[in-house]
Amino acid sequence: MSPSLTFVLGGARSGKSAHAEAIVARLAPPWIYIATADAWDDEMAERIALHRARRGAGWQTRDAPHDLAGALGGLPPGQPVLVDCLTLWLSNRLLAGADVAAESAALVEALAAHDGPVVAVSNEVGLGIVPDNALARRFRDAQGRLNQMVAARAGTVLFMVAGLPMLVKGSPP
Amino acid sequence: MSPSLTFVLGGARSGKSAHAEAIVARLAPPWIYIATADAWDDEMAERIALHRARRGAGWQTRDAPHDLAGALGGLPPGQPVLVDCLTLWLSNRLLAGADVAAESAALVEALAAHDGPVVAVSNEVGLGIVPDNALARRFRDAQGRLNQMVAARAGTVLFMVAGLPMLVKGSPP
Amino acid sequence: MSPSLTFVLGGARSGKSAHAEAIVARLAPPWIYIATADAWDDEMAERIALHRARRGAGWQTRDAPHDLAGALGGLPPGQPVLVDCLTLWLSNRLLAGADVAAESAALVEALAAHDGPVVAVSNEVGLGIVPDNALARRFRDAQGRLNQMVAARAGTVLFMVAGLPMLVKGSPP
Repeated sequence: MSPSLTFVLGGARSGKSAHAEAIVARLAPPWIYIATADAWDDEMAERIALHRARRGAGWQTRDAPHDLAGALGGLPPGQPVLVDCLTLWLSNRLLAGADVAAESAALVEALAAHDGPVVAVSNEVGLGIVPDNALARRFRDAQGRLNQMVAARAGTVLFMVAGLPMLVKGSPP
Repeated sequence: MSPSLTFVLGGARSGKSAHAEAIVARLAPPWIYIATADAWDDEMAERIALHRARRGAGWQTRDAPHDLAGALGGLPPGQPVLVDCLTLWLSNRLLAGADVAAESAALVEALAAHDGPVVAVSNEVGLGIVPDNALARRFRDAQGRLNQMVAARAGTVLFMVAGLPMLVKGSPP
Repeated sequence: MSPSLTFVLGGARSGKSAHAEAIVARLAPPWIYIATADAWDDEMAERIALHRARRGAGWQTRDAPHDLAGALGGLPPGQPVLVDCLTLWLSNRLLAGADVAAESAALVEALAAHDGPVVAVSNEVGLGIVPDNALARRFRDAQGRLNQMVAARAGTVLFMVAGLPMLVKGSPP
């Protein structure tokens, strides 16, 4: 287990990103923000812009829509890191035809290996009706497995409900 | 924060309405039930009838499928109020082409402004796979934002799981 | 209430089965595994094979994709039982045209009646957007009602999040 790894899990619009940013911003700056979004359409570009606008000074943004483990490996030690989010990374990799099981395992090692606090954000997507299409089912399975692996390694796991954290594991960050 | 506001959040068929009614029914009657359902098809009409049948004497029902803030503003002080539910109201307003962000903010003020206990029921809808169609995504976003605003103002927030309340914020009502 | 009944509820790929198996495997063997899956396609057959491979010696497997209450009624007293899962059983019965409300009530009685520890696994499916098709909505409603009934009878209810149990009712098993 990696005590310095905090996992913030929740649904869409559950306040995951804002809560994760608040956790990191209580630590000494500068803070590293690793963004995994690909700005491939207007809807996504708008969300990225909103997230950037909410973050203020003190943040260093790095884009890693695909090589997230590599981006984590190249960080200076000691600095707090926010990874937002594992769901977009997984979606990018699945659509790129990657072996997401192997890459998920490598990513969890990279999250745990950073020498400093890491807060990782991810979506819970398995609490609705079984999706009609096979790709959505594959994504749901891969996301659930990745979430389990990260949660097993994290020192603290939070489940966000309507902007409020429920403590699933560890002590409040 | 409004200590007299209780927020009961959960999935479909999670026992939200029954639990919210039980909370209100522990207070002195008469109780005001604000219904937001539009009986626009047989499936909905059946659900409304089932909910009405479960409530007994002591309840005064008011219908407010659209002007929910207005209905809250016109209530006599001191009486316990159940609002069931914010999800149907939001759906009605979104389909009517309203500015749901502005109306959500006004609704939260109205919920907090009532001079007496208020229990508000809402659905969590963001824990499944991203919906295919854009309207469903807009609804999901608007619902998540409304839920966050209500939860931030509420003194008590409950997340219903299989008919059982999990305490997210505050003390058990 | 039946103190010997434990209910493990969660989303897809939330670690429900593994956690439920671990609870049962802390008790004295032999353990009875009641499987409800119908191996009606390759995807399901693969999942069944994976689940079987994870379980080791000490497990006696019985298949009950339809007559789950009957299978529970025919068990020798005292032996720990794992039922995995109620969701597949409900899906099988709904597709067979059964009266799932009546059968759900009978199933809950059978779960509570076994003379020995019972761990039942089920999916929460109501936390996404309302499904487009009527059958999926009927399933979602039936699943929610069944989950509420089981949770009301169980001595312990766990909600799985990313492989980790959140205690909803009772004491940790």
